[in-house]
Amino acid sequence: MATSNIPEATAKRLPIYYRYLNMLATAGTDHISSTELAEVVKIDPATIRRDLSYFGALGKRGYGYNVLDLLEFFKKTLSQDKLTNVALIGVGHLGQALLNYNFHQSNNTRISVAFDIDQALTGKIQSGVPVYPLEDMKEQLRLQQIKIAILTVPIEAAQAVTDDLVEAGIEGILNFTPLRISVPKRVRVQNVDLTNELQTLIYFLQHFNE
Amino acid sequence: MATSNIPEATAKRLPIYYRYLNMLATAGTDHISSTELAEVVKIDPATIRRDLSYFGALGKRGYGYNVLDLLEFFKKTLSQDKLTNVALIGVGHLGQALLNYNFHQSNNTRISVAFDIDQALTGKIQSGVPVYPLEDMKEQLRLQQIKIAILTVPIEAAQAVTDDLVEAGIEGILNFTPLRISVPKRVRVQNVDLTNELQTLIYFLQHFNE
Repeated sequence: MATSNIPEATAKRLPIYYRYLNMLATAGTDHISSTELAEVVKIDPATIRRDLSYFGALGKRGYGYNVLDLLEFFKKTLSQDKLTNVALIGVGHLGQALLNYNFHQSNNTRISVAFDIDQALTGKIQSGVPVYPLEDMKEQLRLQQIKIAILTVPIEAAQAVTDDLVEAGIEGILNFTPLRISVPKRVRVQNVDLTNELQTLIYFLQHFNE
Repeated sequence: MATSNIPEATAKRLPIYYRYLNMLATAGTDHISSTELAEVVKIDPATIRRDLSYFGALGKRGYGYNVLDLLEFFKKTLSQDKLTNVALIGVGHLGQALLNYNFHQSNNTRISVAFDIDQALTGKIQSGVPVYPLEDMKEQLRLQQIKIAILTVPIEAAQAVTDDLVEAGIEGILNFTPLRISVPKRVRVQNVDLTNELQTLIYFLQHFNE
């Protein structure tokens, strides 16, 4: 399966399919058509069929997809069959929200360690996660062999902290800062810019209503 | 200008261009080539040229784009020449982080009102924003003529609150809940699913490193 060549838009929809397949399996549904799945996940059936076809998962006419087979497949594809530990860098308001958000409630991913510069926050366990001083970051990341970091530091600190993350061997960064950080090619950055999301929504509203 | 027909991927990049053009203008840069802009915003030059061409903005060979002209144009396109008020529904951890995030620091958008079910939070002003009981939501949204809402309620409440938002005349919802909410066609939903973002990053790391 050429799973590394699928379009980014498809990759972004996989966790949605996975979550809903989980719910369907729990509800005892054993097969589902792309049209039925489309109604649940609010993605059009043609897109669903195309997405699933990248993985060689082809529904049978008149039957659709087997829910458990598809679920098992997504579990492996999304590495949900093993725990992934991630580090949180920056325990400000957004960082605290992410600590409380508990990624591991719905999937096999968890923030296992956090770092901050503020001495009032460090040396303690918060929402079940130990918070270390930022100066211990490189050492702890290497020690704990963590490869993924969530970046929620102030914009002024973003590039310097990123450089440290790269030195510590981090392979992926979920970047919540508005800075477009510079990293070597081997490191993947996924940007989540909340201001962008809001501006994009406003943009579409203005221009579709004109 | 056919600004309502541009691809969503392009629309999502517009706020990035806008933010960096602002910085360039402040720094006194008066023109920039797509290659130079590409280095700053970490988007490849061909994509930048294509994005800008949708708006009829064509750089001049050997000169590039005029920064102030482009900035002025984006300001209008992104409705940054007037203030947009948005409502925050749900002042939990993520909601509190968004209140503190202050969209209006970098642009002309602000959370002007918030709603929650928790009586310990309502009837007060938090981070400069008044927090009303959820039962006042429909009335206040109509009164304040707010058309955009940020949804950060628990998943169990998401659809019911959405139905109320639709009744109150909301036109756009920035949905932070993991539920794919149902809305009439006239309402635009932009989903920001933090678990998805993290899973997509993990997915790419796994499959590019295999």
